[in-house]
Amino acid sequence: MTHPTLIEIQQAAERIKPYIHRTPVFTSSSLNHMVQADLFFKCENFQKVGAFKFRGACNAVFSLSESEARRGVATHSSGNHAAALALAAQRRGIPAFIVMPKTAPEVKKAAVAGYGGKIVFCEPTLAAREATLAKIVEETGATFIHPYNDPRVIAGQGTATLELLAEVPELDIIMTPVGGGGLLSGTAIVASELSPTTQVIGTEPEGADDAYRSLQEGRIVPSIQPHTIADGLLTSLGDLTFAILQKYVQKIVTVSEKAIITGMRHVWERMKIIIEPSAAVPVGALFERKIDFTGKRIGIILSGGNVDLDRLPWRS
Amino acid sequence: MTHPTLIEIQQAAERIKPYIHRTPVFTSSSLNHMVQADLFFKCENFQKVGAFKFRGACNAVFSLSESEARRGVATHSSGNHAAALALAAQRRGIPAFIVMPKTAPEVKKAAVAGYGGKIVFCEPTLAAREATLAKIVEETGATFIHPYNDPRVIAGQGTATLELLAEVPELDIIMTPVGGGGLLSGTAIVASELSPTTQVIGTEPEGADDAYRSLQEGRIVPSIQPHTIADGLLTSLGDLTFAILQKYVQKIVTVSEKAIITGMRHVWERMKIIIEPSAAVPVGALFERKIDFTGKRIGIILSGGNVDLDRLPWRS
Repeated sequence: MTHPTLIEIQQAAERIKPYIHRTPVFTSSSLNHMVQADLFFKCENFQKVGAFKFRGACNAVFSLSESEARRGVATHSSGNHAAALALAAQRRGIPAFIVMPKTAPEVKKAAVAGYGGKIVFCEPTLAAREATLAKIVEETGATFIHPYNDPRVIAGQGTATLELLAEVPELDIIMTPVGGGGLLSGTAIVASELSPTTQVIGTEPEGADDAYRSLQEGRIVPSIQPHTIADGLLTSLGDLTFAILQKYVQKIVTVSEKAIITGMRHVWERMKIIIEPSAAVPVGALFERKIDFTGKRIGIILSGGNVDLDRLPWRS
Repeated sequence: MTHPTLIEIQQAAERIKPYIHRTPVFTSSSLNHMVQADLFFKCENFQKVGAFKFRGACNAVFSLSESEARRGVATHSSGNHAAALALAAQRRGIPAFIVMPKTAPEVKKAAVAGYGGKIVFCEPTLAAREATLAKIVEETGATFIHPYNDPRVIAGQGTATLELLAEVPELDIIMTPVGGGGLLSGTAIVASELSPTTQVIGTEPEGADDAYRSLQEGRIVPSIQPHTIADGLLTSLGDLTFAILQKYVQKIVTVSEKAIITGMRHVWERMKIIIEPSAAVPVGALFERKIDFTGKRIGIILSGGNVDLDRLPWRS
């Protein structure tokens, strides 16, 4: 697989335009004051299904030929990618088969079902998940859409940064969270082409620092028993995203759980918007000041806003 | 006192423009689907100090003559008006004296102090509050800015509806919460002049239904021991707001606590924005369907977003 080019990302933007929200860029004078920088928040928490994942899923689904599309799409995920793929498939009028562990939270099952996804349950092991997915693909001819290690998905995720740079030029830094690396990959490709002086920084929870260690060691170091409140970032890099990050990303910084929660709460309180813990990781990096942000113009992709309001992290 | 005219409200809009946010209007296809109507949310939760109150406070402060302004402004409030007045005064570079009961929550004291307000504590009784305010005004020559029963404040609050109607014409209904009636008064004057076919509906908690009863009985019926989670709506109408509501408001509907909490949670979950309970009252009215909203184009002023995240209403 080769990585998507800027042109492919621009084509993705045209392709998905009728289906996605062009999300707003928010600023906050009080957060600027707190971190002594100029922050520009690309609000993908307002995206359809509440996360940037809809961009990549949409691009993948609408890239399929008619005959491919007819047989549907499939994935294994219980998170935002599952919901995003289900909605994208619904928009194209094709089936989406979502393999999920039986033990997935009811709220996630309901989200996928609500978008018309066909849920196929499996045992909660990696082996069962892969076997179940392979069987579905075999039986239905559906196209497997990987959550991040897929050039169409990466191209879709990159469209958020196309919009951000069109609205806010001359950023010194763009920061995103990194889980599997799809969002960071798309972001880095776009920034390197359109704004080469912008530094692209991935931010990762200390308890799930596989991307940080992979770039340090120059090989994919998988997450082993990752532990973080940022539950969208538990996955490890794929070979495609690893190669892109190696080439285009200047730095990965790790962020403590405490800073993630602090960052999340500050955004809720000051900006009056709901972001999920994964989206708070770059904000936490600002508050931890692992690098010097003073006076910089910083774009931050707020990746999503799907939170269980009954289980907030600052709840005692 | 006479009520502000449309022209005075338009002048207010020009006067406060350099200081306020022009807040966005949000839509939500999932909420539209749930209530079977087209909803347009004017997001005053994103306003400076997190509430529409900054509009009125700003208009009052910047309406003062130089010699009046020099002596400062004063009010009694522990809520959004206090913070709004403090910030407006700070912007003009004049003192704001805020009379607050000693027992006010620390977070509210901190907000006012953070905007440079000079807090004057009093005993937590109405008599002490009024006596303390009178003393401050006497000693300093500061101008008392009432939270709602003041034409300059009402004119400021009306500017939100100027913006809403400029962006979304041909609304069938505009709904706001009603506490003291400042927001509803400004809204109703603007709508009656600029969009006479738009019905203006006030929404009030069942446990603080003084506006409903006042309009029913044709006289001001004060709130006696109001009880509601919508803590911005505990106050009673003033003579000025009562007269405006009598003349311009078609209907007040009351909303149960349960519907307020449901509405608040739906907005948080579906729109990913934080609104305070008072702002959720019109949303609750939609879910309770006390009137037929089906197919209507409905503007809703989301009045504010100041919430104690440690004490959410759905917390068990």
